[in-house]
Amino acid sequence: MNGRAAALGDAATVALRSNTVAFTTDSFVVRPLRFPGGSIGDLAVNGTVNDLAVSGARPVALVCSLILEAGLDVAVLRAELEAMRAAAERAGILFVGGDTKVVDHGEADDLYITTAGIGDPLGMELGPQYVRAGDRVIVSGPVGDHGITILLARGDLDLRAELESDSRSVWPFVEALTGALGSRVRWMRDPTRGGVATSLSELARDARLGVVIEEARVPVRDVVRGACEILGIDPLHVANEGQFLAVVAAEACDAALAAIRAVPGGAGAAAIGEIRDAHPGIVQCRTPYGSSRIVDMLVGDPLPRIC
Amino acid sequence: MNGRAAALGDAATVALRSNTVAFTTDSFVVRPLRFPGGSIGDLAVNGTVNDLAVSGARPVALVCSLILEAGLDVAVLRAELEAMRAAAERAGILFVGGDTKVVDHGEADDLYITTAGIGDPLGMELGPQYVRAGDRVIVSGPVGDHGITILLARGDLDLRAELESDSRSVWPFVEALTGALGSRVRWMRDPTRGGVATSLSELARDARLGVVIEEARVPVRDVVRGACEILGIDPLHVANEGQFLAVVAAEACDAALAAIRAVPGGAGAAAIGEIRDAHPGIVQCRTPYGSSRIVDMLVGDPLPRIC
Repeated sequence: MNGRAAALGDAATVALRSNTVAFTTDSFVVRPLRFPGGSIGDLAVNGTVNDLAVSGARPVALVCSLILEAGLDVAVLRAELEAMRAAAERAGILFVGGDTKVVDHGEADDLYITTAGIGDPLGMELGPQYVRAGDRVIVSGPVGDHGITILLARGDLDLRAELESDSRSVWPFVEALTGALGSRVRWMRDPTRGGVATSLSELARDARLGVVIEEARVPVRDVVRGACEILGIDPLHVANEGQFLAVVAAEACDAALAAIRAVPGGAGAAAIGEIRDAHPGIVQCRTPYGSSRIVDMLVGDPLPRIC
Repeated sequence: MNGRAAALGDAATVALRSNTVAFTTDSFVVRPLRFPGGSIGDLAVNGTVNDLAVSGARPVALVCSLILEAGLDVAVLRAELEAMRAAAERAGILFVGGDTKVVDHGEADDLYITTAGIGDPLGMELGPQYVRAGDRVIVSGPVGDHGITILLARGDLDLRAELESDSRSVWPFVEALTGALGSRVRWMRDPTRGGVATSLSELARDARLGVVIEEARVPVRDVVRGACEILGIDPLHVANEGQFLAVVAAEACDAALAAIRAVPGGAGAAAIGEIRDAHPGIVQCRTPYGSSRIVDMLVGDPLPRIC
């Protein structure tokens, strides 16, 4: 458990390691509320924890705010509160406050959860401005599991498969990676809505550099690949809730993979590409057949309420 | 403007005055979105600012998360973003991050806003455990304006009146009060949902002391009193969004009122009662006729979606 928290009437006070704090928020409206490998409560914790982690901050404390639709089954609410408690415990983060609002039937869809989180910044220089040509792109594990799990759970696709959301805290991996590499980690991001493609496109745009990824090196489970083929979507556009992308110095790439793989659940980490001077702002994907395609940001939202 | 903020990918970093931070959150689902004296965006800022202020913390930074119903008029969204910007500027607080989710028509009611805020604790010892018999109870101004304004704006009551929500940051008053009194301020609370009655009932319960208030001293506008009589509710149960309650040492009561009244908008501050050893856990209200009634917590929610 990080941080110390003291309850006050209207706000909690939390002890930090320094006088700088990382601060973030996300709302969660995923449908269905429960799906293989997770639930909305679980996502609401991990999503905010992961935003702190990939910003280079140790997650310390969370607050949550619930919007409930009148008539919501109390057992459903209890299950999600328990999911939040368990996820926070796993992530080593404290809940220090919250709020609840109830709206009429038809003014929400069962339950929406908003979390905000604070963390202790590690003091690293992370961001597109620190990325250089020659740096390597790493992903922490298989991509697309969360988005395809949600799609299958909705029953929109006449397909049964053994697949679970990847919902988890990425902090243990980030801690191992940043501990091993220090300033040789240049940039991190959790590829949620819009997937790996959108995160890397934003990186290419903001760093004014090119990104080249090798399609064959991107870890994608067969069932995810198959579902994507049926749907005509690219696994690189599918949401993840327990993976992160990192750009690291070329000479530190093996050490980076070793650090992530040494953490339980990190065996699937892979180096998937490289930063280039050529084609600034563009993400290219090299196919196993030797051709290249341009990977765009996700436009529109083909998979609404995925998180 | 307090604090310095640097944008990162997924979280902001904010500089604080010390290594302790106050942290709070609230969701806002008020209906209608706009009403005399304020709007949902305005409330979403002031509500979180006030939770920090009455906890004895200088508000520093906010994050917000929007849940939008598909089909929401873009002009409505723009107006609320502008209301949030303006309220934050007035309150001297920075927005450092946010999130947006869109749900289908019928899965929200136009727009819900969740804010979370962090602040620099003043380091005061505030809370029911610091309250003593003989201490005085102060309110910063007229009570019930917000709740009755919302009720009138909904048109549920066939009554027209010149009344505005009291939505505002209470930080300037809190700053003046705590600056003037120091540790002679024992407890503060903003009486939102459930009103003054609920806040004081919680205080009586948690402090294990009695609270006696003089009905004639509680500032209530005529129009609010009239609406409450028609509705059969107690103004002490009606929500406020720009007032706060404070318990102060008896000998500091005049100085407390002077400090609040010296701040623009604070002229209506009043001493409304006293803390007693007798009847621990009970709030009594003495009427102008010499009788006493017990003031209970608000049970149920007679005015839903008031904030």
